[in-house]
Amino acid sequence: MTIVNPSILSGFMELLPEDQILFNGMKKSIEDCFKKYAYLPIDTPIIEKTEVLLAKGGGETSKQVFHIESSSRDMALRFDLTVPLARYVAEHYHELEFPFRRYHIGKVYRGERSQRGRFKEFYQCDIDIIGDETLDIRNDAEIPVVIYDIFKALQFTDLRFHINNRKVLNGFLNHHGIMDFTAVLRAIDKIAKVTAEDMKEMLFEILNSKEKVEVVLDFITFKGSNTETIEHLRSLNIDNPLFVEGVEELSEVYKYMRLYNLPDENIKLDMSITRGLDYYTGTVYETFLNNYESIGSVCSGGRYEDLASNYTKKSLPGVGISIGLTRLFYQLKDADLINLPVKPVSDVVVFPMENCYERGIEVLNELRNNDIISQVYFEEGKFRKKLSYANKLNIPYIIIIGENELKDNTVSLKNMTTGEQNTVSLEEAIKVLKS
Amino acid sequence: MTIVNPSILSGFMELLPEDQILFNGMKKSIEDCFKKYAYLPIDTPIIEKTEVLLAKGGGETSKQVFHIESSSRDMALRFDLTVPLARYVAEHYHELEFPFRRYHIGKVYRGERSQRGRFKEFYQCDIDIIGDETLDIRNDAEIPVVIYDIFKALQFTDLRFHINNRKVLNGFLNHHGIMDFTAVLRAIDKIAKVTAEDMKEMLFEILNSKEKVEVVLDFITFKGSNTETIEHLRSLNIDNPLFVEGVEELSEVYKYMRLYNLPDENIKLDMSITRGLDYYTGTVYETFLNNYESIGSVCSGGRYEDLASNYTKKSLPGVGISIGLTRLFYQLKDADLINLPVKPVSDVVVFPMENCYERGIEVLNELRNNDIISQVYFEEGKFRKKLSYANKLNIPYIIIIGENELKDNTVSLKNMTTGEQNTVSLEEAIKVLKS
Repeated sequence: MTIVNPSILSGFMELLPEDQILFNGMKKSIEDCFKKYAYLPIDTPIIEKTEVLLAKGGGETSKQVFHIESSSRDMALRFDLTVPLARYVAEHYHELEFPFRRYHIGKVYRGERSQRGRFKEFYQCDIDIIGDETLDIRNDAEIPVVIYDIFKALQFTDLRFHINNRKVLNGFLNHHGIMDFTAVLRAIDKIAKVTAEDMKEMLFEILNSKEKVEVVLDFITFKGSNTETIEHLRSLNIDNPLFVEGVEELSEVYKYMRLYNLPDENIKLDMSITRGLDYYTGTVYETFLNNYESIGSVCSGGRYEDLASNYTKKSLPGVGISIGLTRLFYQLKDADLINLPVKPVSDVVVFPMENCYERGIEVLNELRNNDIISQVYFEEGKFRKKLSYANKLNIPYIIIIGENELKDNTVSLKNMTTGEQNTVSLEEAIKVLKS
Repeated sequence: MTIVNPSILSGFMELLPEDQILFNGMKKSIEDCFKKYAYLPIDTPIIEKTEVLLAKGGGETSKQVFHIESSSRDMALRFDLTVPLARYVAEHYHELEFPFRRYHIGKVYRGERSQRGRFKEFYQCDIDIIGDETLDIRNDAEIPVVIYDIFKALQFTDLRFHINNRKVLNGFLNHHGIMDFTAVLRAIDKIAKVTAEDMKEMLFEILNSKEKVEVVLDFITFKGSNTETIEHLRSLNIDNPLFVEGVEELSEVYKYMRLYNLPDENIKLDMSITRGLDYYTGTVYETFLNNYESIGSVCSGGRYEDLASNYTKKSLPGVGISIGLTRLFYQLKDADLINLPVKPVSDVVVFPMENCYERGIEVLNELRNNDIISQVYFEEGKFRKKLSYANKLNIPYIIIIGENELKDNTVSLKNMTTGEQNTVSLEEAIKVLKS
């Protein structure tokens, strides 16, 4: 028989069971938090009509889409969870309650060139709140609260939400007669990755005025407490209506984040946060782990005016955030930063010796009745091999049942950490295993 | 702007949040059971190399595979979880412990013609135990125990495992000089769907002998208790070695299923169960819900001699079972048979009136600190609309905070089921909500 080399495609993540348990633990922590904050689950097909997925047209993403071979129908794999959400809300508009608070954890696909820490298949974990015609600005304050709780569950409390509002930035540029928003925002977006000198040069190329470059740089690099930042924005006395509205929104979001008991040191109102180019229209978020800034933003999102304009004439404003879990896992794992307690696959393995199999099952049943996660090992072989099975799976205890234990109605319980082994009644063994 | 019709491809399942909660509840029950019985999780890419997925070659399934458009690499979507398991075990052989007990819950893809209850994207929930060179027959007895526990969690205890062993059937046919196994097994596989007369005719077409048809029919339709069935098989005095081995295995699996406390009335040793054609080599299972036989087998599987012969020269025997969750959900839902308790998205919604938003957040924080799943509704609008939001989402309580409540430091708690409304302290409200 021809042997096909067993391997996966490059750029895809696959884990061994031990890491998979860790990954699933993170995923579950995230999902539990989403539920705790009363978000509803959805699960949409991974394959959608190409015309739906690419309704927005062009752009970088469309080049990365995986298309399905088909002579009858253009089909492709979703590249994010936002487009399916937009389609879902438009399609089921009459069956949903608004504000529609939904979470979605699922795999998405992008045919990016393979590079370290980037994957062609990855999990996104999204929450969004979608309004019908309007959505109160206070909703924008809850999103970081959920994320803070998630990272707390993942043992990270030393993180910083960088918050801005696109109206502030756009209003400011507008006020200063700068019309090429897109280019300026794209340049500012790179601020964390380039030197101050390079930033200056990039801006000069766009603005062609040293004065304007200084004005923009001063604005986006303002240093001060959050309250000082708000005061500073107000003190600029800019009467551009968009700017004024943006400052009011930003200040309201900040106020409510504090009312939600989000510590002030975890919030940074940051005028240099721009978050992509045309999607967001108000609040924008990025999230950084203190001391691990090199990982980049671990979670980002924002407010958009109109979720589903490609699919419906209804106006559906929303606010949301997304965690790229596969990448986050890879980075945290790489930096040895995952501190979740890992439970082994079972609390104990039962090893019945020859002629003791039936008693082995009796013991197993009793352990399982006592909610002790247990398995039985039936395979023949040297005892050393059996011990190694339990050892390699980090199972903390084993139970051995040989002829003596069978005769005396006992079990031999071995602690795999200390090596201590005792012959005890099953009841005593259960007591130890439960403690 | 052009509006694209928001719709999914035909043959795909998508649920509204209420049903999604139910679906996720079933999925979680299944996963919890898999973990309880000490199976390790894996999660493999949905896209794999076509050469890997189709290593086994031809067959019906290969025609249903979704291929990815690509000029550089043949890629396709997995059509089951068994092929990825085989590839995984062969690829990671040196990093796994055997017996390798793994579970996998994930979506698979088949481009079948759309028909009621059949989906092109569906969840499979699989467990398998894979041995290295050998795998003890007693493992075959645990698989139905896990499934029994799962269906118990899903509120079904009235189910029947139909168990057979391919060696019994093949050995029997062999003994009677019938060599065209494949055709006979394929015919027998249809026994539940055709009349006795049609069955006879189908068999006659293959066997061309009335006598042989009677022999086969007698064999596969034997009626008796499980113990009688075993005795009957032994009393046939067939010395074909495959038959003898099969009867011994079947009797051992039955004995251990009983030792695992699986009730006898839930087991049916059934000589007419064949389970597909070339994959299984020993024990085979099908599972039926009593009184709902029309749903067909809700869960099936069996023992195979060699999992990964397309990817490795190692011999890796295994035993496993699979639940087609998407189809099962659809069928149970359709027959109104899902009895899982559904928790609403939250225990309570807080409705702060104008100027009471800050107090609203205080109350929300306190509720959440007390592990009460809560949300706040900020949107303006008629009170009737607010009530309708809570009603439609089946949220059992609402809290209203108006000027009076703000002044008196109280909340108005309304029971949405009884309509009863009381103005009480927050502590009292929490007490009610927690009970």
